[in-house]
Amino acid sequence: MKRTEINELGEFGIINRINSKFRKNHKTTILGIGDDAAITNTDKELILTSSDMLIEGIHFDLSYTPLKHLGYKLVMVNLSDIFSMNCYPNHILINLAISNKFSVEAIDEIYDGIKYACDEYNIDLVGGDTSSSISGLIMSCTVIGYGDKKQISYRDKAKVDDIICVSGNLGRAYLGLLVLQREKNKFIHDPKNQPDLSKYKKVIEKQLRPKARKDIIDFFNSNKIIPNSMIDISDGLSSELLHISNSSDLGFKIFEEKLPIESEIYSLSKELNIDYMEAVLSGGEEYELLFSMPLDKFENLNLDKIDITPIGHFTKNKKRILVQKDGKNIDLNTKGWIHF
Amino acid sequence: MKRTEINELGEFGIINRINSKFRKNHKTTILGIGDDAAITNTDKELILTSSDMLIEGIHFDLSYTPLKHLGYKLVMVNLSDIFSMNCYPNHILINLAISNKFSVEAIDEIYDGIKYACDEYNIDLVGGDTSSSISGLIMSCTVIGYGDKKQISYRDKAKVDDIICVSGNLGRAYLGLLVLQREKNKFIHDPKNQPDLSKYKKVIEKQLRPKARKDIIDFFNSNKIIPNSMIDISDGLSSELLHISNSSDLGFKIFEEKLPIESEIYSLSKELNIDYMEAVLSGGEEYELLFSMPLDKFENLNLDKIDITPIGHFTKNKKRILVQKDGKNIDLNTKGWIHF
Repeated sequence: MKRTEINELGEFGIINRINSKFRKNHKTTILGIGDDAAITNTDKELILTSSDMLIEGIHFDLSYTPLKHLGYKLVMVNLSDIFSMNCYPNHILINLAISNKFSVEAIDEIYDGIKYACDEYNIDLVGGDTSSSISGLIMSCTVIGYGDKKQISYRDKAKVDDIICVSGNLGRAYLGLLVLQREKNKFIHDPKNQPDLSKYKKVIEKQLRPKARKDIIDFFNSNKIIPNSMIDISDGLSSELLHISNSSDLGFKIFEEKLPIESEIYSLSKELNIDYMEAVLSGGEEYELLFSMPLDKFENLNLDKIDITPIGHFTKNKKRILVQKDGKNIDLNTKGWIHF
Repeated sequence: MKRTEINELGEFGIINRINSKFRKNHKTTILGIGDDAAITNTDKELILTSSDMLIEGIHFDLSYTPLKHLGYKLVMVNLSDIFSMNCYPNHILINLAISNKFSVEAIDEIYDGIKYACDEYNIDLVGGDTSSSISGLIMSCTVIGYGDKKQISYRDKAKVDDIICVSGNLGRAYLGLLVLQREKNKFIHDPKNQPDLSKYKKVIEKQLRPKARKDIIDFFNSNKIIPNSMIDISDGLSSELLHISNSSDLGFKIFEEKLPIESEIYSLSKELNIDYMEAVLSGGEEYELLFSMPLDKFENLNLDKIDITPIGHFTKNKKRILVQKDGKNIDLNTKGWIHF
């Protein structure tokens, strides 16, 4: 593969190369990359912004993360924060810092992933910068979305007896990470050993290439539903439940038998020698949506074509209860779920 | 000084500690830190956003940069991008990544600087995150401002015969950096040698603690001036002039004798053995404003109380000329000013 050094193009060469990939799609994009600031507008009442940073060695390991997936994931992580407010993201700004060990083609890979995400989710890249780093790759992304007052789902508006729901299924992202780390260690000790990862495709894909759940927001929209509370699962189900619980000043009761857990979670947890509930309750980077709504609204929903699962309800008493399959109540205390 | 380890507080402890420092000031701040996204609103037509990253070892050197100044500068660098569009910034989001070598008190110092900047410029901190880094300190800031269509100054709207003006004076930030680097080297070789930096106070202050030029935008406002073009000087006068020149498809002629250069720039350049024009034309991190307006508007301005200096004009022919004091014309070509 061709390798072009970064200094062959220079900072402005890099910026021009990036810009040429991206086109303005949104009518709300007045001015994209190229001036001191991006300019956007909206006919909505509110502007939503969120920003996240991903750092090599902390948030990702390039020895098993394709750069294209990384660019894609950076965008997903941020879009998810706007969807979890029940709004749609429109624009992103990306800051990238790269050491000289990266080639221009490597930067292209990252931006190809970013562009893939932008095209898929109808997002305009409107700003950011590219600079040097001493060691490794550092990326930050800011996302901007718009919405009307009545449409927003907050963390602190869950109501007593609200049905707690979660999108997708749980535990895959964490198990995918454990598989990748295990295979990396094997490879370090025996570089000739080429792992067959096909068996782990679903969990690895969830870890490397999560999808922000725009389809869930579309479903709410078409069903005229505004969840009383919502959050995206970045730090694990247990931790996010505690966020809503603390913010809304409520307790909750969830049921293990209702949790959306695919059969491979059990077998793979066994293979990896961990408790499957660790992956399900504490596994981060799911980017699934956790939300709540009144029972009567929930009962009217047709869930045939959407992967939404009711897992419990919020309670007036402040207890945070997980009811195990054996009927035993587990206290998910303020520190989240701890190995029991 | 007390040292509290980061893991004594934990991620949420840190976030709470930061939040407790900041209050909502703007009526446009609907929701600050604490949910998945910040929520703001505006009665202006347009939303302006910009984002920058500062990385230890690339953009700053902690051996001579006080953390409080660093937090302040991070905000200034970003605010400057909104002022340079002739608008006012309202909100910022900050992402911080820190290694364990930093104490909680060190994080406090950074946020004290950020808070000082927010208070001085009437800015609300509304979002961001704090995470770990493997090595050193990484900070990114996103700034949000609002404005009306007619008020914006772009890079690409300079007109033929526009008077080119610059705020403040030039060359200090770069010389300040050179002094700090020289003293650091001296200190490495002779740690007992405590430098007397009082002589260099102004250039060092400009480097470590630049000020975004809100006062210039206030001046435009009170004089009902909207510059035809404007940019902030982050990469040096020459480079920024070329940006406007390229974007507006014009040439320019500027005059050395008109450039705002304080006498210490000459003496200090000599002491540091560099050409003073290197500091003046190519010295970055000035965060002064470079802008243009028609001659008749310029002539009506009372510049007694504001440090704005006319330095030349834009031309129909595409030449980029610096007229030296000796009358010789220098071509500031596409690569900016090169040592001549």
